[in-house]
Amino acid sequence: MPTFSHPDFESPALAAAPDARFQPAPAGGVLPDGFFSTTNLPTYVRVGGRWRMPREPRMDAALVLDADGELWVKEPRRVRQGERVAVGYAEDGSEGIFVHTAAFLGESEEGEFKFMTSEVSREKPIDYALMASLLVDERGRGGYPIWVTGPALVHSRARADMVWFIANGFVGALLAGNAVAVHDIEASIFGTTLGMTRTGEATSGGHGLHMRAINKVRAAGSIARAVEQGVITDGIMHACVVHGVPFVLTGSIRDDGPLPDVLTDAVEGQEAMKRHTVKATMAVLVATALHAIATGNMLPAFVTERDGSLRELPTICVDSSEFVVSKLKDRGTHQAFGVVTNAQDFMHILRLYVERELAARAGSARPSEVTRDVARPVRT
Amino acid sequence: MPTFSHPDFESPALAAAPDARFQPAPAGGVLPDGFFSTTNLPTYVRVGGRWRMPREPRMDAALVLDADGELWVKEPRRVRQGERVAVGYAEDGSEGIFVHTAAFLGESEEGEFKFMTSEVSREKPIDYALMASLLVDERGRGGYPIWVTGPALVHSRARADMVWFIANGFVGALLAGNAVAVHDIEASIFGTTLGMTRTGEATSGGHGLHMRAINKVRAAGSIARAVEQGVITDGIMHACVVHGVPFVLTGSIRDDGPLPDVLTDAVEGQEAMKRHTVKATMAVLVATALHAIATGNMLPAFVTERDGSLRELPTICVDSSEFVVSKLKDRGTHQAFGVVTNAQDFMHILRLYVERELAARAGSARPSEVTRDVARPVRT
Amino acid sequence: MPTFSHPDFESPALAAAPDARFQPAPAGGVLPDGFFSTTNLPTYVRVGGRWRMPREPRMDAALVLDADGELWVKEPRRVRQGERVAVGYAEDGSEGIFVHTAAFLGESEEGEFKFMTSEVSREKPIDYALMASLLVDERGRGGYPIWVTGPALVHSRARADMVWFIANGFVGALLAGNAVAVHDIEASIFGTTLGMTRTGEATSGGHGLHMRAINKVRAAGSIARAVEQGVITDGIMHACVVHGVPFVLTGSIRDDGPLPDVLTDAVEGQEAMKRHTVKATMAVLVATALHAIATGNMLPAFVTERDGSLRELPTICVDSSEFVVSKLKDRGTHQAFGVVTNAQDFMHILRLYVERELAARAGSARPSEVTRDVARPVRT
Amino acid sequence: MPTFSHPDFESPALAAAPDARFQPAPAGGVLPDGFFSTTNLPTYVRVGGRWRMPREPRMDAALVLDADGELWVKEPRRVRQGERVAVGYAEDGSEGIFVHTAAFLGESEEGEFKFMTSEVSREKPIDYALMASLLVDERGRGGYPIWVTGPALVHSRARADMVWFIANGFVGALLAGNAVAVHDIEASIFGTTLGMTRTGEATSGGHGLHMRAINKVRAAGSIARAVEQGVITDGIMHACVVHGVPFVLTGSIRDDGPLPDVLTDAVEGQEAMKRHTVKATMAVLVATALHAIATGNMLPAFVTERDGSLRELPTICVDSSEFVVSKLKDRGTHQAFGVVTNAQDFMHILRLYVERELAARAGSARPSEVTRDVARPVRT
Repeated sequence: MPTFSHPDFESPALAAAPDARFQPAPAGGVLPDGFFSTTNLPTYVRVGGRWRMPREPRMDAALVLDADGELWVKEPRRVRQGERVAVGYAEDGSEGIFVHTAAFLGESEEGEFKFMTSEVSREKPIDYALMASLLVDERGRGGYPIWVTGPALVHSRARADMVWFIANGFVGALLAGNAVAVHDIEASIFGTTLGMTRTGEATSGGHGLHMRAINKVRAAGSIARAVEQGVITDGIMHACVVHGVPFVLTGSIRDDGPLPDVLTDAVEGQEAMKRHTVKATMAVLVATALHAIATGNMLPAFVTERDGSLRELPTICVDSSEFVVSKLKDRGTHQAFGVVTNAQDFMHILRLYVERELAARAGSARPSEVTRDVARPVRT
Repeated sequence: MPTFSHPDFESPALAAAPDARFQPAPAGGVLPDGFFSTTNLPTYVRVGGRWRMPREPRMDAALVLDADGELWVKEPRRVRQGERVAVGYAEDGSEGIFVHTAAFLGESEEGEFKFMTSEVSREKPIDYALMASLLVDERGRGGYPIWVTGPALVHSRARADMVWFIANGFVGALLAGNAVAVHDIEASIFGTTLGMTRTGEATSGGHGLHMRAINKVRAAGSIARAVEQGVITDGIMHACVVHGVPFVLTGSIRDDGPLPDVLTDAVEGQEAMKRHTVKATMAVLVATALHAIATGNMLPAFVTERDGSLRELPTICVDSSEFVVSKLKDRGTHQAFGVVTNAQDFMHILRLYVERELAARAGSARPSEVTRDVARPVRT
Repeated sequence: MPTFSHPDFESPALAAAPDARFQPAPAGGVLPDGFFSTTNLPTYVRVGGRWRMPREPRMDAALVLDADGELWVKEPRRVRQGERVAVGYAEDGSEGIFVHTAAFLGESEEGEFKFMTSEVSREKPIDYALMASLLVDERGRGGYPIWVTGPALVHSRARADMVWFIANGFVGALLAGNAVAVHDIEASIFGTTLGMTRTGEATSGGHGLHMRAINKVRAAGSIARAVEQGVITDGIMHACVVHGVPFVLTGSIRDDGPLPDVLTDAVEGQEAMKRHTVKATMAVLVATALHAIATGNMLPAFVTERDGSLRELPTICVDSSEFVVSKLKDRGTHQAFGVVTNAQDFMHILRLYVERELAARAGSARPSEVTRDVARPVRT
Repeated sequence: MPTFSHPDFESPALAAAPDARFQPAPAGGVLPDGFFSTTNLPTYVRVGGRWRMPREPRMDAALVLDADGELWVKEPRRVRQGERVAVGYAEDGSEGIFVHTAAFLGESEEGEFKFMTSEVSREKPIDYALMASLLVDERGRGGYPIWVTGPALVHSRARADMVWFIANGFVGALLAGNAVAVHDIEASIFGTTLGMTRTGEATSGGHGLHMRAINKVRAAGSIARAVEQGVITDGIMHACVVHGVPFVLTGSIRDDGPLPDVLTDAVEGQEAMKRHTVKATMAVLVATALHAIATGNMLPAFVTERDGSLRELPTICVDSSEFVVSKLKDRGTHQAFGVVTNAQDFMHILRLYVERELAARAGSARPSEVTRDVARPVRT
């Protein structure tokens, strides 16, 4: 259990500090403007040239000097009209109030009492405009954004949105497992995923449909051949084949089938993924702990530009729980930017913002160029 | 540990069943079309008039009759060209294969082996079109949809979307806690929530901003007066005041302040909420376990129409984890339909779909009516 | 939005029902013993031979007949002394009160208004005594319990408990991935897991320790040889080698190394796992979504005893979130019994209960036998 | 998207650095002892007096200088026998290898590439021995540990353990909501919680049992009187009454009843809680987001000893998800130590460790003292 010293009041900054200023409360339960708002850390108030600690410390309250000269930390609602309330924003003593943050939070620039400092939280806003802008930039500069996705993308209805990103040149390569392709192909052939309809109902006889989908692709010989033969007519894998976007499907121990395209050997799978991670200039990891961590393991945190300069490799990690993103960071992928949401919703809104960004940029460009840009697949 | 009996093979249905049919596998690892896909439940195959259990049972596999007359459950990838594979879809014995589901899953209509049967899961698709349609219907028939929201709605950027729903007549009443209003008002006055900027950064000095926001409203006397005085200029509470949508703010033990409008007594708060729940014809519960369960406690599962007929009271519950929705159901609100996603994304997409639904209905209506409909606040 | 009919009041049961009985409230806010506690479903009360619906329906409240003959659903706290409160427990009309559950919850035996019906929840008690008893039974009858574990088991301090289960004959086979063995061996050689100490601190230079551990085993040639050479001196893998408990380590796309014992090909890995799942008489799945689902895929829901009788295959699935267990069930492993907790704590308490169970059984057996029983490895 | 500069190679430390050392790999896929293990950050290797960046950067790999003098980052499994592999542990250039962490992770002491740095994670070990030691210390010194609990504690079977802590003097005060007491009293009277039995089964008619329990206490007048009258015969509230441990039950908007002891006004409730938080010398927060944050708001991060010295106020926060602990920290309770587990298991193991700690201390003390110590309630 850590103990700590009081601050050094002989230090020049504290020795030279003025007394704290107090103003009367304008009404019961109402504080003067500019009141000092307390933290839960050791706090010292200079009164009559002496540094004193107030009684009953707590956060989110006011500092009150009562008629007997006693200092209290008091909830605003309990402050009576006319009571003397400390005012000031500074916590470094320069206005007569010193919050001893160093004792708890360290001396670094981070050493300030703040709320909402956790890195990954569903309570954080999601900056779709920024992500959309990054993606459009990458496409503009001929970058190589890799997308790594889990099967939740297909279970829910993000499938059409993923197809849109592939068709419009935002996907350098798709890295996924057997299940993504199996669910996607079951959806194309039977209209279900694991026998669940698009409205989320389990169907009678549905438990065998993914096996039937796999069987049809095995009969065709490969996903590309199943597309050629008209067995697979839409969806993510179809889009990759049609638009020439490379994909790597790597096996896992829980796979059914697997599909003929799947690399069942993990080492061989890692080699195949790495042929894309070494070229990656951006990474979008959606709804997959396993493949996100696999990719994070191989991915540098930075991109070296042709002129030798360095920039961060933008890495977006989407999951419905904070856990996956924290796990990715705990395994060294510190640059990952976490988005805690449902994969279906993420894909839909991201596409919306990319469309807006394209429209906004088109407004200031020659229309012909924009049109061409949108239609061109990224890899030719 | 339950034990079970074998099925009654003397029952008329099973006694009269035909032998199972087998077809040769067309290639190695490829099954004949219409193959029987196994489950993990006790399975009986009729061969030569006798019901037999295959060896090495597992799900997602094929039934193979080998050259020695032995029956195996075999992974499709291991089936060799020409091996005899059982075909058929029926699991009730009528094609010579019987899956003994009753032993495990009961005799009811639910008693069938299925995937994806859990009620609440992030893997389920979210039917925004249906929810949008319900909301537009409610507005059309003069219903009274109550919205119950938690502070995550304001932390993230769903604030503008909530304002849109209020302004466009989709909110009968808003039921929430002190924190929703505090964050919303902090956002209006300072542009932050708990000191966090709209892009998710903690700010220096930010930990006191919600206290300063509360103090300004306490000085004004009420939220409505703070709106009148121009202290609060936008946001959710502003929209309620301006559009005459009633709100109930109930207190909780973790409140700062609280704001002057907050009913700090829980019993008094429940009375105030109930004045709205008794009128409710729909409920949308977003990002709040506490208030969702409070509302669920008071809400009938049904609406009695003026003609005495009954219909379900549509209840949508949105949270980023399955837990809150399951908890709500575990406390009796069985009719709740769960949406597992981020509140910000939910609000944004729901609004998008409502806008689409309005546009679609407008296409088949006289434009003037539609416009009037959209502009009219629900409660006048 | 479902609509429903009122019940058939001409049915014999309802036609013959008595009037509801009412008793005066003994004090303000206090109900008579045996009061009827409401649900949120359509409810009908027989008064003067007529079935009537009360006003302001909600759950957890009382039925009050006021002086004007009006029927209300009223919160107990609002009931005044002497008000007439309906009494009775029956919801089928036989005491004059009918709850129309069939409208909502179906006609089956499940069709009753209940709380706490969700299958998997952290709010459910965990029956360690039952699980301990099952494990001791399995060992007693020479069963083959397979354990499938994720790396969280080793990160946290359940390692010693897992060793205890292996050493004492409760583990038929261990099925896991590369990471479990890597962390376990890093812990044996360096005292850390992913560079984190036993008290959870990240260490300087720690990020390379798992790579150094892998390198030492690769140099030795296999885990067994590293044990022989004294490189690995304790832990889970050491216990498997020393006690002759077979293990299968299967590869995944996120593996570092991998260790020489790892089967990197997923299909080959499934074959190796299946050699154990076909013998399994019980399964304990701890802290692994991937391997739990892989095992669930291969595992029958039942055990066929030597005499041909069937019993359920006890399947325990432990995870810190409800999601993994629900996912397992959604993929057909309906028999899984979910335990929502931390792996470390699960292992520790399970061991404690097994030790108690052994002591309790020893009390009624000859001591010598018990001792021999505890010491005997399960597979010889 | 951040960009960064290369390091200053003219700085004294880097200018004076030696060349990196390389050693041949002893076998294929086996690295020399002391190999340098890479990170995903920009890395510079000094070869022939020049700082160079290797190709194909990734973490968890080796630095290889090939026959052509090219530098590669290479997975260990791909290193061939005899290839030159960089050795060294230092990342600051002093052994010829420089990892440019400052670019990404800042200049502070935290600025080092590490795994497992997240503050709150289910993957972190739980130090029960430390927590037990803290509790025994507090009791020994006459401290005032406050316990703040949610209803999950009672739903699951931690009830008996909580009673033990109360009975043995480890609880200064209990702060909770209506639900904790309602479930606890339902368990005492009916043996269920929300109608769920101790083995987790929903019971017929069970949905009304908590209402009947509340009614009995309302009839008695208070919890203490219900204990006196023999209505409540065991459990947490019973233990508080019998052992004279003060409790504060504060209301919430979702309460049924409430019980007569509940403070329904939130402001009054906060005042009552604060009478205990100002005396608190330790806090244990179990399975409650609402009350944990309420308490965190009021609790200083430190204890002022009688001699004026300061120490941290130990604050343990237990929840089954990382979210609650992160939320508590995000609202300023930085000193909270998070334990991600099930409340039932936490209570059981903590008690076990406290019992062990007492036994261990008893071993080195005079038995009579220890016995007296264990039996004495903390507040007399």
